[in-house]
Amino acid sequence: MNLKYSPNWDGFKGGIWQEDIDVRDFIQKNYTPYEGDESFLAPATEATKTLWQQVLDYKAEEIKRGGVYDAETRVASRITSYGPGYLNKDLEQIVGVQTDKPFKRGLLPFGGIRMAEQALNAYGYELDPDTKLVFDKYRKTHNDGVFSIYNDEIRQARRNSVITGLPDAYGRGRIIGDYRRVALYGIDRLIEQKQYEKEFYQSPFTPETNRMREEIHEQINALKGMLKMAGTYGFDISKPAANAKEAVQWTYFAYLAAIKEQNGAAMSLGRVSTFLDIYFEKDIAAGILSESEAQEIIDHFVMKLRMVQFIRTPGYNDIFSGDPTWVTEAIGGMGLDGRTLVTKTSFRFLHTLINLGPAPEPNLTVLWSKRLPSNFKKYCAKISIETSSIQYENDDLMLPEYGDDYGIACCVSAMRIGKDMQFFGARANLAKALLYAINGGVDEVSLSQVSPKFAPITSEVLDYDEVIDKYDQMLDWLARVYVDALNIIHYSHDKYSYESAQMALHDREVRRFFATGVAGLSVVADSLSAIKYATVKPIRNEQGIAVDFEIEGDYPKYGNNDDRVDLIAKNLVSKFMDKIRRQYHYRDSVPSLSILTITSNVMYGKGTGSTPDGRKVGEAFAPGANPMHGRDHSGALASLESVAKLPYQDARDGISNTFSIVPEALGKN
Amino acid sequence: MNLKYSPNWDGFKGGIWQEDIDVRDFIQKNYTPYEGDESFLAPATEATKTLWQQVLDYKAEEIKRGGVYDAETRVASRITSYGPGYLNKDLEQIVGVQTDKPFKRGLLPFGGIRMAEQALNAYGYELDPDTKLVFDKYRKTHNDGVFSIYNDEIRQARRNSVITGLPDAYGRGRIIGDYRRVALYGIDRLIEQKQYEKEFYQSPFTPETNRMREEIHEQINALKGMLKMAGTYGFDISKPAANAKEAVQWTYFAYLAAIKEQNGAAMSLGRVSTFLDIYFEKDIAAGILSESEAQEIIDHFVMKLRMVQFIRTPGYNDIFSGDPTWVTEAIGGMGLDGRTLVTKTSFRFLHTLINLGPAPEPNLTVLWSKRLPSNFKKYCAKISIETSSIQYENDDLMLPEYGDDYGIACCVSAMRIGKDMQFFGARANLAKALLYAINGGVDEVSLSQVSPKFAPITSEVLDYDEVIDKYDQMLDWLARVYVDALNIIHYSHDKYSYESAQMALHDREVRRFFATGVAGLSVVADSLSAIKYATVKPIRNEQGIAVDFEIEGDYPKYGNNDDRVDLIAKNLVSKFMDKIRRQYHYRDSVPSLSILTITSNVMYGKGTGSTPDGRKVGEAFAPGANPMHGRDHSGALASLESVAKLPYQDARDGISNTFSIVPEALGKN
Repeated sequence: MNLKYSPNWDGFKGGIWQEDIDVRDFIQKNYTPYEGDESFLAPATEATKTLWQQVLDYKAEEIKRGGVYDAETRVASRITSYGPGYLNKDLEQIVGVQTDKPFKRGLLPFGGIRMAEQALNAYGYELDPDTKLVFDKYRKTHNDGVFSIYNDEIRQARRNSVITGLPDAYGRGRIIGDYRRVALYGIDRLIEQKQYEKEFYQSPFTPETNRMREEIHEQINALKGMLKMAGTYGFDISKPAANAKEAVQWTYFAYLAAIKEQNGAAMSLGRVSTFLDIYFEKDIAAGILSESEAQEIIDHFVMKLRMVQFIRTPGYNDIFSGDPTWVTEAIGGMGLDGRTLVTKTSFRFLHTLINLGPAPEPNLTVLWSKRLPSNFKKYCAKISIETSSIQYENDDLMLPEYGDDYGIACCVSAMRIGKDMQFFGARANLAKALLYAINGGVDEVSLSQVSPKFAPITSEVLDYDEVIDKYDQMLDWLARVYVDALNIIHYSHDKYSYESAQMALHDREVRRFFATGVAGLSVVADSLSAIKYATVKPIRNEQGIAVDFEIEGDYPKYGNNDDRVDLIAKNLVSKFMDKIRRQYHYRDSVPSLSILTITSNVMYGKGTGSTPDGRKVGEAFAPGANPMHGRDHSGALASLESVAKLPYQDARDGISNTFSIVPEALGKN
Repeated sequence: MNLKYSPNWDGFKGGIWQEDIDVRDFIQKNYTPYEGDESFLAPATEATKTLWQQVLDYKAEEIKRGGVYDAETRVASRITSYGPGYLNKDLEQIVGVQTDKPFKRGLLPFGGIRMAEQALNAYGYELDPDTKLVFDKYRKTHNDGVFSIYNDEIRQARRNSVITGLPDAYGRGRIIGDYRRVALYGIDRLIEQKQYEKEFYQSPFTPETNRMREEIHEQINALKGMLKMAGTYGFDISKPAANAKEAVQWTYFAYLAAIKEQNGAAMSLGRVSTFLDIYFEKDIAAGILSESEAQEIIDHFVMKLRMVQFIRTPGYNDIFSGDPTWVTEAIGGMGLDGRTLVTKTSFRFLHTLINLGPAPEPNLTVLWSKRLPSNFKKYCAKISIETSSIQYENDDLMLPEYGDDYGIACCVSAMRIGKDMQFFGARANLAKALLYAINGGVDEVSLSQVSPKFAPITSEVLDYDEVIDKYDQMLDWLARVYVDALNIIHYSHDKYSYESAQMALHDREVRRFFATGVAGLSVVADSLSAIKYATVKPIRNEQGIAVDFEIEGDYPKYGNNDDRVDLIAKNLVSKFMDKIRRQYHYRDSVPSLSILTITSNVMYGKGTGSTPDGRKVGEAFAPGANPMHGRDHSGALASLESVAKLPYQDARDGISNTFSIVPEALGKN
């Protein structure tokens, strides 16, 4: 559809972006790559310092109060539920907090009222009884929906942690709205576009047609909500942003709407810095903005992102080893035309780590390419050394797959901004499944029958071929039950907790990834290697369940660049991915797999019995695709080589290798 | 699945009904046909008289208060929302009212909060602001859902009344739970059965699988609700009813749950009398119940059914010319084995019209067969003459189609009890569509373009072939838009206002009828006849819209057994039904058509311009399939013959012919 020209676009180079919603085209036509160094950057202003001290004071008080400063207990968070809130109205360049006060956590019950209530209780708050009643009597939540549908098999698998971390009681996250669209187009034009898109779906009015129309209707409502919410702060975002400050503010309002509506496990920001740089360049060129003012705007924006908070249950925090929000911003990277996407604002974002000090959030993620400007590379290295607060991802690997306008949801899930989203799927425990194969589907910890009663292995010594055969059958079962659960979860999430604000900032046709994940890869690889190359005898309890293993002889271990075991790991990934692929996937989503437990590996290990690799009951797994700690004794390079053999085409949602390095390991310079 | 034997079944002849949920089998194995006369019947007891006087007092007070005695304004009606309520606890044999007080109307917002609010306002009540907030902010209703999805075309068609009465703002009704199941099996067994049925739906968990599982989950919740609700009255309905009084009470509790949950346009009872008779026969044979006691139980039951009420908007009441609830009970009929299904309790139900006096509700409907016992026929005639309160339907026509355990939803929609349901569809205005064909889709009253801009007829005299051709095109459009609207409505109703209590008393696999209807049949038949056999000149306004017609010469009129016009009517029905059939139908439902405006014909006429048959703007249509008043001048038989030519196979949801007769018309006896 044709958009009307806005005078706020004066000075920009025109293009398709003026006809269609196409932020990338706007960026490509207008951005200024920057190959210089960091010398232009400005220090924190007095206002920034004052504000940041206020944030630190709040944080200190929050700790004093037991982890939560304040919490809403009555009104459920929607885009327009709460009045405006300020940190310090006189000093803030960028305004907006999640509730009506900074550090007051919102009530987000649509994912699950029980978890919302438990989270409040954990910090000494009580859910308002009238609100509780509403959700008990009138309004089902995502969590209610899921548990209305689950069958016993899924409940058992879940209870016994062979599938874990399922997003069935809270927001799934992993959706990145193209928040830049609000700045570039203004709400009015986005509503027009969505009204146009809604009419794409016409007779016959099948359930699918109806769903699409109703979803777009809710998206339009969300856009109207953003307009109203911004209005309470005194801003009219119906029109495109007219300058850099407005561009940042409009973008932030759009993101703020998303985090008022959803408390997803990861609420990433996307890739805004190069986009915003266009506005900064224009204002600075026009002489209406100084570098110090530009940096102040970015500092205040990032400060707001550092204040993003949800109230979570202690159990949730256990899984994630803390309370991450994954406000991931992808910075830098290369363009398809060979120009770098690094701009001065890429520097400004990283510079917040100096002006405000180091912080884990927002999760500033540099899209690393060999071709990045050398000055930027050096600056990244410098800031990394000083703050340890930058995440790096391989742009050279992802660019061919996702183009040059993708972002990172959570820590590794790449997706094209406004075009892709992910059905988050947590993880299946492959190590436990191996024990199930040996024990005929009886859980080695709870001793319950979890899978169907497959024949257990009864021999004194484990035979590799028999184990592989039975494991294959068990993985067939696991993949099916796992995908079953996810098909229920995402159906219910769409029905009861649809992300209308985020999806309002997506195209009409969205590619959906059906994300799955695995834990315990190196445990299984080593276990199978031990069974093949050493002699492994199960030690069985009185019911015949293998609760420990005796290993005679040595065996090749994953992490030493030894194909005998590395290929076991590689093949396992491909095999499991194929079993996932073979299933039905909700909404024609595209299955993907990740190997990226970064912290929860400890928790997985806790719930898993002793394994044939010699790991004892309760001992932690290695994180992600890492070799088991201490077994990769052939040097860092060999360890990395083993991980590098894992097939990316079968683990598109990401492979993580947690790797600490001391300067000496890199050799002398 | 195998059910466990209940001692409360002692004395009944066993059968499949003890293995499966099969009320019909229980009836067939155990009922006692009655061919005798009414001499056994007992008069109203003192308790009945006292109670009925109380009801009359309430009704008088209700009129004094402007039509509503009392109304709930805060708590939405669900099965267990309100405490127990009594008319007169000491005297009532059968207890239970819709809210916590007799004649206090419940708040049923799930179909649409706006209509619920307007209904309250119409009688001087205010919706509680907190409750309003819940529905504004947290809980969408069926009505919200529909209007999230509708397109402009449907809105226009609806606004201009070429499609009318759509159930998009209130409960659709037309579902009959097999309320007898609660009496025969008790809640525990029904829950077991539903749990078993839920597990039928397994991997892959497609949206359809998920929906089925979630619906059955809600059905189980409804059964649990019935148990709890009955408990508040001091009854344990977990087990089968042990005697006649319990059988009636259990059956009524099940029905009560349905009318607490839904305010459908028709909330029929089904076919309970022959079933209940088995319990009465047993108790009377055992000497533990007298005829007077038996009649008292039925009288009190029927009294409760006469108290069924919903609060409606004046606009709703206009459509239905009053405030009918359509508590239809099908009585009598024949069995497939040739035995009559008339029992003593068939007489007892009709006898309530004497003991309590005449009343339109419950809508006592005799399933009439030539083979009914002569004594019952005579008794029906007698009660009809005395009370004018019996509806008759043709069992000989419906038995081959629906078997011998069907009921009537609303006034004519036949469905097998517990096996069929209907997606109610109101009506399309065929007469208005004819004017659209002439005027290129411009509404003759509002002058808006409603259909696509088809070419209008511009000739001075209407040419039959041209009219038929353009009408055909217009009916293609009308059938599509009409079915589009219904596909949206029933999707949304299932999503936001699912009939869990009624569907809990259905089989797992339900046959769904996709009901449509037409108004203005005789107007169109006569109009087309006039165009064909006389000379019809449109009188056009300045915009060229035909607002009146000049007719020269005479033409054959529908209702005189004249094939020239009767076949036009017949073919129109078949043609429109084929256009309905050709569409997509939600949930694989079976399309059907009715020709049965009984009262709303006046309203349809009001909104329709002058037609080529000589009918003037605003003049009433004939009801249902009736000839236009005064045009059937060839005698009653000829009029009936015309109607009888309409093809039942193309109007399975019923053809109505409103026909008043004076004794003299039948000839001398």
